[in-house]
Amino acid sequence: MDTNTVYSDNNAIDIMETIQSNSYLIYFENSLNELAKFIEQGNYSRFFILTDENTGKHCLPLVKDVIGDYNYDLIEINAGEESKDIDFCIGIWKMLIDFGADRQSLLINLGGGVVSDMGGFAASTFKRGIDFVHVPTTLLSQVDASVGGKTGIDIDSIKNIIGTFTQPKAVFIDYRFLQTLPPRQILSGTAEMLKHGLICDADYWNLLKNSDLSKPTAEMVYISVGIKNKVVLEDPHEKNIRKSLNFGHTIGHAVETYSLINDADPLSHGEAIAIGMICEAYLSHKKARLTAAELNEVTTVLNNLYPRYDLKESYNDELYTIMLKDKKNQNGKINCTLLDAIGQFKIDNNCTREELFESLAYYAGL
Amino acid sequence: MDTNTVYSDNNAIDIMETIQSNSYLIYFENSLNELAKFIEQGNYSRFFILTDENTGKHCLPLVKDVIGDYNYDLIEINAGEESKDIDFCIGIWKMLIDFGADRQSLLINLGGGVVSDMGGFAASTFKRGIDFVHVPTTLLSQVDASVGGKTGIDIDSIKNIIGTFTQPKAVFIDYRFLQTLPPRQILSGTAEMLKHGLICDADYWNLLKNSDLSKPTAEMVYISVGIKNKVVLEDPHEKNIRKSLNFGHTIGHAVETYSLINDADPLSHGEAIAIGMICEAYLSHKKARLTAAELNEVTTVLNNLYPRYDLKESYNDELYTIMLKDKKNQNGKINCTLLDAIGQFKIDNNCTREELFESLAYYAGL
Repeated sequence: MDTNTVYSDNNAIDIMETIQSNSYLIYFENSLNELAKFIEQGNYSRFFILTDENTGKHCLPLVKDVIGDYNYDLIEINAGEESKDIDFCIGIWKMLIDFGADRQSLLINLGGGVVSDMGGFAASTFKRGIDFVHVPTTLLSQVDASVGGKTGIDIDSIKNIIGTFTQPKAVFIDYRFLQTLPPRQILSGTAEMLKHGLICDADYWNLLKNSDLSKPTAEMVYISVGIKNKVVLEDPHEKNIRKSLNFGHTIGHAVETYSLINDADPLSHGEAIAIGMICEAYLSHKKARLTAAELNEVTTVLNNLYPRYDLKESYNDELYTIMLKDKKNQNGKINCTLLDAIGQFKIDNNCTREELFESLAYYAGL
Repeated sequence: MDTNTVYSDNNAIDIMETIQSNSYLIYFENSLNELAKFIEQGNYSRFFILTDENTGKHCLPLVKDVIGDYNYDLIEINAGEESKDIDFCIGIWKMLIDFGADRQSLLINLGGGVVSDMGGFAASTFKRGIDFVHVPTTLLSQVDASVGGKTGIDIDSIKNIIGTFTQPKAVFIDYRFLQTLPPRQILSGTAEMLKHGLICDADYWNLLKNSDLSKPTAEMVYISVGIKNKVVLEDPHEKNIRKSLNFGHTIGHAVETYSLINDADPLSHGEAIAIGMICEAYLSHKKARLTAAELNEVTTVLNNLYPRYDLKESYNDELYTIMLKDKKNQNGKINCTLLDAIGQFKIDNNCTREELFESLAYYAGL
């Protein structure tokens, strides 16, 4: 993949209608009307909408407005990462069974990453696969979870340990959903957008770091989806360059899981990934070619934007145990994606326990 | 698909070495040595063998003999269809997690259909998919479950309601495993072989009906795998001709599920499918072009070969409720594969509740 191209060369940015992904379209313009058209034109026998308690209240009314003439059954889960457990997935399967869903049914995932990841998994395995579409309602799910065909659920708090690679039939991104999100949820999505800049597009990073990220623009969402889409199109099954998207996630996922298990008010995904990106930027300076100045820049931007987390040395062993279960590992060795520069990733870096602990200490010492 | 070709034209039958399936090979000759070669040549980090208590005792020693130099971890489940529930699948996932399985791991499914269906599903979803191979040890799994890329588990006794289409990396069929099987298990597999004849190959049906089916030959296994393979290669995702394989299964699966829930000594898969084939042969005479003489022939052969089951009229409603949950249905209509003749199938026949009950009464009245 050419770096530094997506933002700079994106002449289509004034249009922002659709992005072509792996056999499906991502809609940006009038996207809920496009959803209604999709439903009208599809040859579906039944419709199901998966929501959580929040999107059921705040987002479903907008969807109802446009698809009001179609009957659907509603499946609602609790909000939050805890709902992504296999037990909730079994609940979705059982409801589909009870509602009499057949193979020509469509599942509409209306919500954040939990809804799209779990809804995608439930659909991709129900009767060996029914169609599904995503209507992502959080910034995080718009710029990350809804694109790329990864589905997943957690077992014993191990994130996405079970899943499939299955493409949705379409993704409908409506910027209006973002306008009612609490600031903390916006910031959670911003972390992935910053990552897109860090791994592939220095210009985009520069744009973001100089913007008010409490209010990301529709253009920024469009650019981030474009970057993610370009990466996953080139490597849908994560054999090589898709691993770039894991920057910050080896340590970030471990911190997120740790917090989920141990904290009364756990870190959001983005908050944890921001910590992971600082630690892995440190490793990038130590083990790859990220300069001291770049490390400093990444650290400063992220550390100023996100709340501090009290990462104690006593957590290290538990964090390491979690990292050992990371899907990216091979032969028991922990495998990180690092940066050779801002805008340039480097995959498949084995990191030792000592190096990982050193990077955690770097964050703790800031 | 041309009918009547597989058995009659199969010049390769003297060789019986391999059959090429969808991107993988099915080995017949020295197949356990081929498994050892496969392991040696594959770039796998870890090996796991899934067995049930029976195959762990009777079949694992033969496998150990040839792959003795490779370390593997063993995952054992209880024998029987009850083990195919999602709860046991979660158990397999957790063991893979605890053993530290990574994405370069190989799962070897050593057992019957429960082991291959569930092992295939567990592998196809663990970390979004690890490689797996089948070493089918029952006649039923050799001629049916191991070929075609369907994986599946049950929920609330609804068979294969959850699953994926995922191809194994290879299948190793060793005829020796059949020689220690109890007669009832042999007969369970024979039902699927008879079905292969009924749907696609009248000559093969004639061969089988005139043979001692308590001792099916290696050639018969080879012919049946060839028929099934030809069908699934042409239609891997069951959009059209693969539905031919469902002959006998709409009613058969319902009877099997009913028996599993209600009987102390439940019917085997083949015993239930034999009942289903008699009922659906009746429907084939009534609704398609199967002649009265052919119906009589099918009924006589199957009814003589399989033990009678006391199918009471009072079971009808429960059987119908189970049939309504069948994956093949569309818009709440029950969809059967029937026969236009012995050796010629006809897919997508809607059958009414009354017709289905009439066919059950036909069996009961024999």
